[in-house]
Amino acid sequence: MTDAREAVEAYWAAAEARDWEAFGDLVAEDVIYELPQSRERVRGRAAYIRFNAEGFPGDWHIAVERVAGQGQRAASWIRFHDASGTQFGLCFFDLDGDGLIDRIYDFWPEPYDPPGSRAHLVERC
Amino acid sequence: MTDAREAVEAYWAAAEARDWEAFGDLVAEDVIYELPQSRERVRGRAAYIRFNAEGFPGDWHIAVERVAGQGQRAASWIRFHDASGTQFGLCFFDLDGDGLIDRIYDFWPEPYDPPGSRAHLVERC
Repeated sequence: MTDAREAVEAYWAAAEARDWEAFGDLVAEDVIYELPQSRERVRGRAAYIRFNAEGFPGDWHIAVERVAGQGQRAASWIRFHDASGTQFGLCFFDLDGDGLIDRIYDFWPEPYDPPGSRAHLVERC
Repeated sequence: MTDAREAVEAYWAAAEARDWEAFGDLVAEDVIYELPQSRERVRGRAAYIRFNAEGFPGDWHIAVERVAGQGQRAASWIRFHDASGTQFGLCFFDLDGDGLIDRIYDFWPEPYDPPGSRAHLVERC
């Protein structure tokens, strides 16, 4: 059985390579992908490949910062670069009993101004 | 040695209990905490306990959605509830050789409107 951490590393390598066949082989037929911030959802392998292959046109690249996990659960932190700049992307993944990714929760945190109320408790970096 | 996943579960239990002594026992003396979105940083156990104990007044509560990890690396997804509502909180953790958390990256993704450009590729949830 594929470990969740290895599956997630292969998932990002396939996305970066636009190898949608390899990408599809890592996810379950009944995969569910959710963006909790915007309440968007994609159901099923075919729809999920289409979402990735068609939903993000342009020359983007992915750099993996961290993958944490084992067994059937993992999380990743990536940097997504395109012509408009760099964004953080954070995902949580569940795997099924066959080692396929069957659940993905995807988050895109945006920069914000530090609140003045805690300025005495932090430094800037 | 404490596993990263167990350490992170204990970390959130201590935060929810406001047990700052137990919380402090889980982090390294030289812990570094960063908020990459706002470019804020806190260095050292004493400053980090103070940041948590004083930086977030009010009656907040934490519900842990997911913890993924093993060995010296983990990630968590929590819901932070207070009088103003509920926020997602996502963290990545590194542990040192003694099983203490020595690096924390903390993200707070906000809700956003789904882009119309991919409306044909998703459902709403």
